[in-house]
Amino acid sequence: MRAAAQGRLDRLTKPVGALGLLESIAAQVCAIQSTLMPAVRRPVALVFAADHGVATRGVSAYPREVTLQMVANFLGGGAAISVLARRQGMPLWIVDAGVDGDCAVHPQLIDAKIRRGTRDFLEMPAMTAAECRESLWRGREALERVRGDGNTVVFGEMGIGNTASAALLMHGISGHPLDECIGRGTGLDDAGLARKRSLLATAIERRAPPSDALELLTEFGGYEIAMLVGAILAAAARRMLVMIDGFTVTVAAALAARIEPAVIDYCVFGHASAEFGHPALLRYLGVRPLLDLGMRLGEGSGAAVALPTVGAALALFTDMATFEGAGVSERSRC
Amino acid sequence: MRAAAQGRLDRLTKPVGALGLLESIAAQVCAIQSTLMPAVRRPVALVFAADHGVATRGVSAYPREVTLQMVANFLGGGAAISVLARRQGMPLWIVDAGVDGDCAVHPQLIDAKIRRGTRDFLEMPAMTAAECRESLWRGREALERVRGDGNTVVFGEMGIGNTASAALLMHGISGHPLDECIGRGTGLDDAGLARKRSLLATAIERRAPPSDALELLTEFGGYEIAMLVGAILAAAARRMLVMIDGFTVTVAAALAARIEPAVIDYCVFGHASAEFGHPALLRYLGVRPLLDLGMRLGEGSGAAVALPTVGAALALFTDMATFEGAGVSERSRC
Repeated sequence: MRAAAQGRLDRLTKPVGALGLLESIAAQVCAIQSTLMPAVRRPVALVFAADHGVATRGVSAYPREVTLQMVANFLGGGAAISVLARRQGMPLWIVDAGVDGDCAVHPQLIDAKIRRGTRDFLEMPAMTAAECRESLWRGREALERVRGDGNTVVFGEMGIGNTASAALLMHGISGHPLDECIGRGTGLDDAGLARKRSLLATAIERRAPPSDALELLTEFGGYEIAMLVGAILAAAARRMLVMIDGFTVTVAAALAARIEPAVIDYCVFGHASAEFGHPALLRYLGVRPLLDLGMRLGEGSGAAVALPTVGAALALFTDMATFEGAGVSERSRC
Repeated sequence: MRAAAQGRLDRLTKPVGALGLLESIAAQVCAIQSTLMPAVRRPVALVFAADHGVATRGVSAYPREVTLQMVANFLGGGAAISVLARRQGMPLWIVDAGVDGDCAVHPQLIDAKIRRGTRDFLEMPAMTAAECRESLWRGREALERVRGDGNTVVFGEMGIGNTASAALLMHGISGHPLDECIGRGTGLDDAGLARKRSLLATAIERRAPPSDALELLTEFGGYEIAMLVGAILAAAARRMLVMIDGFTVTVAAALAARIEPAVIDYCVFGHASAEFGHPALLRYLGVRPLLDLGMRLGEGSGAAVALPTVGAALALFTDMATFEGAGVSERSRC
């Protein structure tokens, strides 16, 4: 299907390759959807939120209660992902994967809470093995519940402290030196970053990162990250186009790909985040992000900003004229 | 206005600066539109097409008749810019600035033809001084004719051989070494690129590039490029948001800025093209492009692909909740 798509791309009225990355995206979506008429149909945004035991140690510039407050903001329509989803007519679903507090009942909120935040991985495993498997399963269930007849899902996350967790997971998956996996998250200053580095170094002294994806998640993961892994696996199994957001969602994609390598073929990486480890993680996965806007917000915001560019790539693929159709001369053999 | 916009950006429910380049774009459009409720309203796409005397020398991978054929393709709806404009509900206007052939009459075609292509600048000035001034004027007229009550214009161009002209103009404006201004255009191979370099070196032996923008255009310009300069000046004077496309349109923006430096404040640079000189030209202008997708098609396609991202930046600015409004805790002083 990719070859057939490339054949069409090379007959469109433009120099070969002149649409750059938009051509690869179109060919990829043709392969995902097994068609030469690819389209983004009824996309949904699915954002997983949870708290982290380690957040009380001061690994974030924001207090832990912000996770709960932001869930209310997502549902109230005032967060970045709320605005972006509304603008694109895309339903936004929020999953309480393990928020430390009671989220008010709301029709777009899915209660999948495992526990009020993970345990502090500086002292013990962040979750039990059973909680990890349950999280994967609930991620899958959430995806099944919201997908409807859509063929595209935008994944996001919220969780104060979760770039600390994601940094350890990236270190465990990729083998990159730990410090190269650690960034400023929501905006740590130099002293805060030094503290985060020092704390995370302590975490891997307690327990060297296991190579198995589930064991790694159990030790250092978050409930929202584990549910993302399950949801990404489920979306790929449904042959959906999977829009990956920034650092934390990309870590979840890397874990999903460790479990099922073919998952990557279904993922479009929306943007390169300004979070320090993200570009290296994208290189490790061998993928190229669509946008590079210096965003570092999470919530699925980068993936949502990128989605219209995917739509443009598919419209160009399906709607442009071919050289023979438009009576345009092809390049001379020079 | 920029300071007021930045004040609002810093109160939105996100870490300070977390929307990256989208924040600068929002602040810029607030300044352009003198409002804290910025919006893209009824955008139009305006594409100038013309032929180049030098095209018969083999500076392009495509034959010269493709300019005329592509004008028909633009108007017939099959070109990349046609698809992108339609997708965004954006009227597409094509200006015949100097195509070597008769464009069929069409309601979206503006006949502003100066001549059937410029003269060959290897032998003589590409145009007369009177033609150059007339082109600037007709560019202004075209903008006035199509803008309606819209506040945004996407500029594009078409002209086989015009990256050769644009390279000489970039060299003249920026002082960058000529070879660093020359790229493969629609897809020259190594031998073709060597030939283009050698021919353009000959051109500046005939006449050293003048430093005056109009004299430079007269020597080495194209009618579509000169009309773009006039249209960009007029759009900035109307306080419109000016979406700049790739290499050739950016050269026109640089020339417009040489005439009126404030023009740059009205320009959003849609993308970094894969054409060799473009990133250096953007650095010379001190601007950062929104997208970097490896596109190298022209027609306004890169600017049109970027426009929804500008729309997203403005929607986030106007529609996101503030910390106080949403009851979200601001960052701790850590």
